[in-house]
Amino acid sequence: MAAKDKKLDDLFYETLRDIYYAEKALVKSLPKMAKTAHAKELREAIEHHHKETEGHVDRLEEVFGLIEKPARTKTCDAIRGLTDEAKDVMQEFKNSEALDAGLLSAAQAVEHYEISRYGTLKSWAEQLGLDQVAKILDATLEEEKNADKTLSRIAEANVNRRAQAA
Amino acid sequence: MAAKDKKLDDLFYETLRDIYYAEKALVKSLPKMAKTAHAKELREAIEHHHKETEGHVDRLEEVFGLIEKPARTKTCDAIRGLTDEAKDVMQEFKNSEALDAGLLSAAQAVEHYEISRYGTLKSWAEQLGLDQVAKILDATLEEEKNADKTLSRIAEANVNRRAQAA
Repeated sequence: MAAKDKKLDDLFYETLRDIYYAEKALVKSLPKMAKTAHAKELREAIEHHHKETEGHVDRLEEVFGLIEKPARTKTCDAIRGLTDEAKDVMQEFKNSEALDAGLLSAAQAVEHYEISRYGTLKSWAEQLGLDQVAKILDATLEEEKNADKTLSRIAEANVNRRAQAA
Repeated sequence: MAAKDKKLDDLFYETLRDIYYAEKALVKSLPKMAKTAHAKELREAIEHHHKETEGHVDRLEEVFGLIEKPARTKTCDAIRGLTDEAKDVMQEFKNSEALDAGLLSAAQAVEHYEISRYGTLKSWAEQLGLDQVAKILDATLEEEKNADKTLSRIAEANVNRRAQAA
């Protein structure tokens, strides 16, 4: 199809493939991040989000089914960049007191990317009259927002602990 | 310095270099995005944010001065990924009716990344007792949040226009 003939449903499908790649990549990279974290609370939060992420992959496959299109990934450069940054911080701050702060920052950048993507996809699904799809995407969007809030809470607790120790 | 001896001020400096690279990359890529946009309102919003972004680069240089460290960029894989995605959408949806929706989505993903990064940097600056630095970072954070709101408003207006035309 020529670029100029493409419509919103094509953009929706391409973006769905992009976040499908991203979620699958996160299923692989989150356990490494959890394993590296020092604080038990952070490790458990990442492990919990890993389980949720597996559910997000399943939900996306349900969406592909509903729009009757093949569930195929499309390389998502953004998530590659974001997970590369997480890898860098794990390496450069290995065993340091700042490691968890770096991990929290990397994980929150990932959450913000996903919140942005799912917000857009949900809005497009509504425009396209795909009500059931919009509901499924909203369920994941809410989990991503909650994951971001949990990370913020851990970051704050981390600060207070450091302040008391100082 | 060995990874294990690094502290929060090292993480702060490395992350500052990362966003300095990102802002400089955006100064280059935003004009291309503005030029491609169909809707005048979107084009003007991106042009306006381009001017703000030049200001963000200046502010970061001020921060480097305040912490007495060299203003050096560090390749930010995340922003490379995000701008690559924007390039892809511009190419794959060239001259199509879905182009602006794709550009809006790409631009919002960039804003979310920056909001996440500046939020983290501001919080670290406060922890490090760098009050003046935290204020400067907060000024940029507020502009990024406003840019995201403007893009959301344009996306919504875009939807309503399409709905009326249907």
